[in-house]
Amino acid sequence: MQQLKQQVFDANRDLPRYGLVTFTWGNVSAIDRERRRVVIKPSGVAYDTMTVDDMVVVDLNGRVVEGQWRPSSDTATHLALYRRYPTLGGVVHTHSTHATAWAQAGLAIPALGTTHADYFFGDIPCTRALNEQEIADDYERHTGTVIIETLGEREPLQMPGMVVYQHGPFAWGKDAHDAVHNAVVMEEVAKMAWIARGINPLLNPIDPALMNKHFLRKHGPDAYYGQK
Amino acid sequence: MQQLKQQVFDANRDLPRYGLVTFTWGNVSAIDRERRRVVIKPSGVAYDTMTVDDMVVVDLNGRVVEGQWRPSSDTATHLALYRRYPTLGGVVHTHSTHATAWAQAGLAIPALGTTHADYFFGDIPCTRALNEQEIADDYERHTGTVIIETLGEREPLQMPGMVVYQHGPFAWGKDAHDAVHNAVVMEEVAKMAWIARGINPLLNPIDPALMNKHFLRKHGPDAYYGQK
Amino acid sequence: MQQLKQQVFDANRDLPRYGLVTFTWGNVSAIDRERRRVVIKPSGVAYDTMTVDDMVVVDLNGRVVEGQWRPSSDTATHLALYRRYPTLGGVVHTHSTHATAWAQAGLAIPALGTTHADYFFGDIPCTRALNEQEIADDYERHTGTVIIETLGEREPLQMPGMVVYQHGPFAWGKDAHDAVHNAVVMEEVAKMAWIARGINPLLNPIDPALMNKHFLRKHGPDAYYGQK
Amino acid sequence: MQQLKQQVFDANRDLPRYGLVTFTWGNVSAIDRERRRVVIKPSGVAYDTMTVDDMVVVDLNGRVVEGQWRPSSDTATHLALYRRYPTLGGVVHTHSTHATAWAQAGLAIPALGTTHADYFFGDIPCTRALNEQEIADDYERHTGTVIIETLGEREPLQMPGMVVYQHGPFAWGKDAHDAVHNAVVMEEVAKMAWIARGINPLLNPIDPALMNKHFLRKHGPDAYYGQK
Repeated sequence: MQQLKQQVFDANRDLPRYGLVTFTWGNVSAIDRERRRVVIKPSGVAYDTMTVDDMVVVDLNGRVVEGQWRPSSDTATHLALYRRYPTLGGVVHTHSTHATAWAQAGLAIPALGTTHADYFFGDIPCTRALNEQEIADDYERHTGTVIIETLGEREPLQMPGMVVYQHGPFAWGKDAHDAVHNAVVMEEVAKMAWIARGINPLLNPIDPALMNKHFLRKHGPDAYYGQK
Repeated sequence: MQQLKQQVFDANRDLPRYGLVTFTWGNVSAIDRERRRVVIKPSGVAYDTMTVDDMVVVDLNGRVVEGQWRPSSDTATHLALYRRYPTLGGVVHTHSTHATAWAQAGLAIPALGTTHADYFFGDIPCTRALNEQEIADDYERHTGTVIIETLGEREPLQMPGMVVYQHGPFAWGKDAHDAVHNAVVMEEVAKMAWIARGINPLLNPIDPALMNKHFLRKHGPDAYYGQK
Repeated sequence: MQQLKQQVFDANRDLPRYGLVTFTWGNVSAIDRERRRVVIKPSGVAYDTMTVDDMVVVDLNGRVVEGQWRPSSDTATHLALYRRYPTLGGVVHTHSTHATAWAQAGLAIPALGTTHADYFFGDIPCTRALNEQEIADDYERHTGTVIIETLGEREPLQMPGMVVYQHGPFAWGKDAHDAVHNAVVMEEVAKMAWIARGINPLLNPIDPALMNKHFLRKHGPDAYYGQK
Repeated sequence: MQQLKQQVFDANRDLPRYGLVTFTWGNVSAIDRERRRVVIKPSGVAYDTMTVDDMVVVDLNGRVVEGQWRPSSDTATHLALYRRYPTLGGVVHTHSTHATAWAQAGLAIPALGTTHADYFFGDIPCTRALNEQEIADDYERHTGTVIIETLGEREPLQMPGMVVYQHGPFAWGKDAHDAVHNAVVMEEVAKMAWIARGINPLLNPIDPALMNKHFLRKHGPDAYYGQK
């Protein structure tokens, strides 16, 4: 468990390093599938003063099993995603500037180029709005529900992130590090898509053949990007 | 008083650290309610060379009671706010880029998402223009007057900032540190709102239920964000 | 002369520090009015490797009187300004991003708020285009001519900068340091004006009474900003 | 060969320094024309941990002749350019934000000012889309083909870069260092052109006389910018 705490700690510290967060506006978790334990950032604690031992360990129902702090207020969202998708190893939530702007605009981040297609296999969806009941009662769990409703049966590692309407981005991956990596990409393609549409409002979405080529050159059995 | 001077000094030094100021374009103050003294940055002095003892102590009428320098030229605005709102502990003024752009645009920064609602309970208002008389005569005090006219009977800690028309942002909080914190948030949501409206000019304001949820999850008796 | 060389050296090194230049795209000069000598950056030399003794001394006709390098290719523009306006002590040219964008847009940077009015007394003009003859023959001197034609009889310290059509910003001041200061302000207000007009294309120019108030609070006999 | 490896290593490390890359999204190569060998970055290796000896040496058909890693997945594009244009000494590919946005917009980066004309003699072209066959079969080589088709008989050092449709920028130069220099310029003029057109959608392209003046003041037999 100490190793997973270290990974989650490192991944949380990467959030300010990559410019994804202001103050404490972001949290990363990771799961140990065998022991059914999730490690997550404590709520409202600053990245530059927290230590590995401040990480909180919870079970899949959100009960704290280790740690002296309250877990992130978004813990119920993370847990909903882990329970639904067995391939997920890490989850991250931020309010990164450009991805949050798309969430506020209420629009999917369109797949416009290979930078996007190298990581996200299609438009990055925006969820529907939560209704009043979902907000009033168990809000954070319902945030997970609406993400799951939007992602549906898709393999989450092929669409490793989403923006929640009027809220902000969630991303995920095979572990905590990979989740943060995908959050960085989402922020960058959110910025590029804003600028590209500003330059040419009539631009075309990426050619599906080009999208397939780039996604599959990095992912799947025939990938040839990087080292073996 | 030495402790308050240190807090005001630290809060002023945070302005360049958070990218809120160019040159000397910003000032933070804090009040000692018991002694009825306000500590404020000296006018036109650089953040990186000033010392704690350069902070100026004034009474609530603006008379210097301690310190070798002139206080900030905006002192009369700060004092007007402290006199009117007893819950204020700190005030800050900057020309941060995006909040100032909204001031120049003459529009309230609309509440578009949870990032905004976590701190500001509704649109961040833009004041009316000062008239010629108000500008000519006791300009800085009238800047305070127009902020007060716009905020009215609202609790200032629920709307901890505002943009002054064709001028720039003022923010406040329970102390100097909190005021700067709110100024950082205002700049960030000002940037997000600019981008979000660029992406989708027809976007909706935040759902009131979602705004209530987020503001009250962080503020008030039932808050559950952060540690007890 | 060594002191002036130091000032010009320092001011040139401030260009990358303030984010005004990429590579060697900027140069600062200053004048010694008594000796009728101008000190200027050498052409195409990198800011981080140059030394004080690399600064070039020229007379008002551009003849090198000291130094081993060619002076900046823009020297003739600087000299034209010094010859015409006796109050100028320093001149700077950069290709800073947002001011250059206004030069490319072919529009004056409009005075929209107090940030602008604290330094520039009115819209920051954009010159007319040079004609083919002016470009072909003594181009850099004609760049100075067109700036002078645009500024006319105005006191240059009340309008301490301008954008040259399809080229970029020039700024000036009472010395090299002050010129760079004004170049930083021009870049910042150029950015703010772009964003403000993006937010509200129908915004109003700054109220003349407010412009007067802010400019005169910092400049002239009744100034009260800063320390005596 | 060790010297060329050092140059390629240094040039690759400059990519994050100039803010051109996120993660490993960029690669620089250089050619030894006599020995007909190209040195290029290994695929998917991080800039801050790689060493000079991680650089890969390939022949002009892409066979690895030295080095323990796979070469960049874009190697075939680099080689196509070297084979076609004998004056090229270095090639670089990135996903820099603003140049990539123009690639996604599917538009040439228009020549709007002297910043552009100092390096690029005309609009920076955007290639046509690759067709399905070109994507499916030998994709990276066809990326080179479409760049060559677009550049045609022009001297590549007069148009030292291009954006590939829905993909991103490639730049080149007389060596690896020069190629990166041109990639930095392309990103900067891509940003300026976006902003300038946002300010004034009806702006004019640069006056051809001004473009000639600036390009030729820096390049060719009559250049007078910089030191002899």
